[in-house]
Amino acid sequence: MRTHYCGQVTETLIDQTVQVAGWVHRRRDHGGVIFIDLRDREGLVQVVVNPDAAENFSKAEKLRAECVLSITGKVIPRTEGTINPNMATGKIEIVAEKLDVLSMAEPIPFQLDEKNVGEETRLKYRYIDLRRDEMQNNLRLRYGITRAMRRYLDDNGFMDMETPILTKSTPEGARDYLVPSRTHPNKFFALPQSPQLFKQLLMMSGFDRYYQITRCFRDEDLRADRQPEFTQLDIETSFMSEEQVMQTMEGLTKTIFKEAIGYEFEGDFPRMTYAEAIEKYGIDRPDLRIDMQLVDIADLLQDIEFKVFAGPAKDPKGRVVALRVPGAGSMSRKEIDEYTKFVGIYGAKGLAYIKVNDMSAGIDGLQSPIIKFFPDQVMQIMERVGAQDGDIVFFGADSAKVVNDAIGALRVKLGEDLGMLEGRFKPVWVVDFPMFEEDEETARMVAIHHPFTQPKATTEEILNHDAPHQMLSRAYDLVINGLEVGGGSVRIHDSKMQAAVFKLLGISDEEAQDKFGFLLDALKYGCPPHAGMAFGLDRLVMILGDIPSIRDVIAFPKTQSAACPLTEAPGMVDNAQLQELLLRFRKPVRSADK
Amino acid sequence: MRTHYCGQVTETLIDQTVQVAGWVHRRRDHGGVIFIDLRDREGLVQVVVNPDAAENFSKAEKLRAECVLSITGKVIPRTEGTINPNMATGKIEIVAEKLDVLSMAEPIPFQLDEKNVGEETRLKYRYIDLRRDEMQNNLRLRYGITRAMRRYLDDNGFMDMETPILTKSTPEGARDYLVPSRTHPNKFFALPQSPQLFKQLLMMSGFDRYYQITRCFRDEDLRADRQPEFTQLDIETSFMSEEQVMQTMEGLTKTIFKEAIGYEFEGDFPRMTYAEAIEKYGIDRPDLRIDMQLVDIADLLQDIEFKVFAGPAKDPKGRVVALRVPGAGSMSRKEIDEYTKFVGIYGAKGLAYIKVNDMSAGIDGLQSPIIKFFPDQVMQIMERVGAQDGDIVFFGADSAKVVNDAIGALRVKLGEDLGMLEGRFKPVWVVDFPMFEEDEETARMVAIHHPFTQPKATTEEILNHDAPHQMLSRAYDLVINGLEVGGGSVRIHDSKMQAAVFKLLGISDEEAQDKFGFLLDALKYGCPPHAGMAFGLDRLVMILGDIPSIRDVIAFPKTQSAACPLTEAPGMVDNAQLQELLLRFRKPVRSADK
Repeated sequence: MRTHYCGQVTETLIDQTVQVAGWVHRRRDHGGVIFIDLRDREGLVQVVVNPDAAENFSKAEKLRAECVLSITGKVIPRTEGTINPNMATGKIEIVAEKLDVLSMAEPIPFQLDEKNVGEETRLKYRYIDLRRDEMQNNLRLRYGITRAMRRYLDDNGFMDMETPILTKSTPEGARDYLVPSRTHPNKFFALPQSPQLFKQLLMMSGFDRYYQITRCFRDEDLRADRQPEFTQLDIETSFMSEEQVMQTMEGLTKTIFKEAIGYEFEGDFPRMTYAEAIEKYGIDRPDLRIDMQLVDIADLLQDIEFKVFAGPAKDPKGRVVALRVPGAGSMSRKEIDEYTKFVGIYGAKGLAYIKVNDMSAGIDGLQSPIIKFFPDQVMQIMERVGAQDGDIVFFGADSAKVVNDAIGALRVKLGEDLGMLEGRFKPVWVVDFPMFEEDEETARMVAIHHPFTQPKATTEEILNHDAPHQMLSRAYDLVINGLEVGGGSVRIHDSKMQAAVFKLLGISDEEAQDKFGFLLDALKYGCPPHAGMAFGLDRLVMILGDIPSIRDVIAFPKTQSAACPLTEAPGMVDNAQLQELLLRFRKPVRSADK
Repeated sequence: MRTHYCGQVTETLIDQTVQVAGWVHRRRDHGGVIFIDLRDREGLVQVVVNPDAAENFSKAEKLRAECVLSITGKVIPRTEGTINPNMATGKIEIVAEKLDVLSMAEPIPFQLDEKNVGEETRLKYRYIDLRRDEMQNNLRLRYGITRAMRRYLDDNGFMDMETPILTKSTPEGARDYLVPSRTHPNKFFALPQSPQLFKQLLMMSGFDRYYQITRCFRDEDLRADRQPEFTQLDIETSFMSEEQVMQTMEGLTKTIFKEAIGYEFEGDFPRMTYAEAIEKYGIDRPDLRIDMQLVDIADLLQDIEFKVFAGPAKDPKGRVVALRVPGAGSMSRKEIDEYTKFVGIYGAKGLAYIKVNDMSAGIDGLQSPIIKFFPDQVMQIMERVGAQDGDIVFFGADSAKVVNDAIGALRVKLGEDLGMLEGRFKPVWVVDFPMFEEDEETARMVAIHHPFTQPKATTEEILNHDAPHQMLSRAYDLVINGLEVGGGSVRIHDSKMQAAVFKLLGISDEEAQDKFGFLLDALKYGCPPHAGMAFGLDRLVMILGDIPSIRDVIAFPKTQSAACPLTEAPGMVDNAQLQELLLRFRKPVRSADK
């Protein structure tokens, strides 16, 4: 039904007859002639309908936006004044010889160039929303990324393999989506939170290098950047060290950026230990575009009278830091109040600051209500943070967690607010994660990565460790611009070590056997050393395209209440269907609006 | 942990030191020396452990099959008599200088070369089963096929796009897998039986050419070649006719066969109408490797006394056919009895036959108990089927359905039993399907393909048709060797025509609005003509690899009762989880062993 895409009809086709098909993007009547901008996947082209072609003209008069047409006509050059140098097809137009209306359109609920269309409306009429340039570009970018991924992995000996969607509850810790089994009454499948155990089993099966771009599922209350189903590039390798996995994945990342958006990283990605990231940035996914660091000053303030600083400075679980913000000394009281409110979100009880007016004047050149509490230390602090005239220095003093969360977030917010982002993409590998942390609620040890990650310790050491939270793991995360692109680890490939980790996590032998018996078995029958990684595809598209919302990188996403306004899923089912599953509704025990 | 894959250490590496890693495939002690066949994904290599390397030797003595090793050693040529020309690595061996046991193996539950291991055992220890050559090859073939698909579609302007897994019940007619929603009490997602409506919506969104290799789900009682989750190559295009879609998919098929197994089809795939397929082969997916056809003879037998033939011959819903089997005239009574039993499976009440001893002797040269019932017609029948000396001719007379099913299946069975398969792969496009058929149970019209397929009729004709079962559709199936590889159709792109089809199918306006309201809406806002197709990936792998079981082309399949012996999915869930979903168990109303 066409010889060319609309966006591909250029001046090389002048005097030729072409056939194009697409949507009426705009219709203008001008000087007795009708101009139609016809749109398809590849762009726009201008079609001219002259009144002397009476049948075409009368059809064209009835057209409205988004009607679908087929046009046959001759390509002619545009007259001098009407050339549009910003359009690929801007030098020509097509004189319609034949105009067929393939589909009339009713008036559409919103215009494609309309701003501020509500998200619910956009999702309900997603097939219109997706016609917009922005959404076309986002999904084309997504495809470009997956294609680059596949090419790289195909070329590097990885095999694309599928793992089950109907499977057993996996132990990522989030809530599973459950699927009742009809053939096994009272039993359920779970949708996978990741193919973690299957990919490990594929290594035990000898496939050596596996990849899959696959859907994962978590039934959690949704934050802004989460979806109930999300897509992951999942990777596992045998006989490779973490160093080799990181190099391979770094090569993959560079390939993706180059092929999908033409961006080239310079040199190797820097490495940083978890401890260094927390120390300097308060967070394990530092945004290195911002050239500011948290500086520890607890050692200087342990003995002062001022309890707000001295308390956390003396507490082994406390932390006191300074954050120098270059050139921001002219910040207003109102702005400072707003940042104080901001750090309050993270539990900080206030936000002390010092404005640096004139370093050469010593303490007199500083301006702050708090100087009086540590006059003897203040210049030493200023020197340690490298303060210069015109700076402001913020302070955080609280439990280490609150300080890291609050001042770490403040650092990023200041960086963005003050236009301090340097460079387009700043990657960093974060390594030497702790293996375990204490769950605040249950006071039990939990695995930070997951319980199949290999600790940097022997089985003996795991069983007899007196400070498990100090044990490091062979895990690694790739962070770009402060966002976690992916994470991975060397896995345990020894059943005794796996059992020791389960034991440390307080998982009884019986529970371990029940949930992971097949893994513990498999580890006994010849398991290669193996390591892997997973990249969050949705987030990667967001990073490469600088797209703030996860719902703008997925063709048919769910709302924050995990529903689809387009299809109205989830929906009611017949009682007969429930009956077949041997289920019935329980009377709601909580409010139905939850 | 290695410099080379085991299977890649060849004579070009002689005198070099290499490092390999893999599984102990075999260990032999011979003349005081230990020989290990070490196996990885790429093959086997022979490792020699000499007794003078005492530490290595004592490690090697403890090894059993499937232990995982790392070996560093020098590549040397094998001595004259020990060269194995059938192995890529058969001219060399590696003398172990360093032998590390990466993982000891307990005695494995079955040997890799063991025949007749039960399928339940194979699936329970799938990670061992998958190490077998056969399974490695099957899954590598599967990957080769998907890679060839992607390359071809990428090169032809198709975009890989994802559609939801958590969605609304789709209307393919099979039973849905349901997923209870926690955030929307008493509502359910359904897992997709196919992405049919989403891919149509993507065309309405202007993406023009879409593909996805995606999981689909059907909660049906499993036949031998079915799985609860299966994989489909899903395709949709805009502004293409069925002819263009078929050409594109034919190109895809040729590319797959060539790239995955090096097979080249000659010329274009033949086309056949549904009517012709039924007439000649009794089935809409004819196996053209078998050069036998059903021949209608009802016209000759309407007026004979013999009711068994005359009844169906006179009945408009009956059918009488002859099937000539060349050179099978020496078939024994016992064999014929077995084929009679075979057609009984399909409802045939008997299987009449005539053996052709001597055509030149006329009726006297034929041998059969039934000749006496139509002596005047028998020679005409023999001529019509082209009978020759030494043939046997079978007869079917019953309802058209029974005759088509029984004699169609008999044709294939005879072709296989008698070694009549000609050629390796015989493709055929089947076109001009009927749009509707009557459901035998409900006597309602149902869509043969699906209700979004475009009939070869106008909306007016659909609304006023007095014989809807005679209406053809714009559907097409690709059949290879009697197996349906894929099917597709031109879709309805007009809301009035879609509504007319729903009406003909007895779907009320209210039901249509409830289930497909979003589609009917979408059709009103500018819908391009579109058409598509889906290929069953699992079946395609079975065809290309000549693999009889679907469970041998899937890494982690389910059993026929839809369970996974490896992970023991489906499993029990905590009552708390059910409670969160506001569900409870219903007391089973049928036997629990169902």
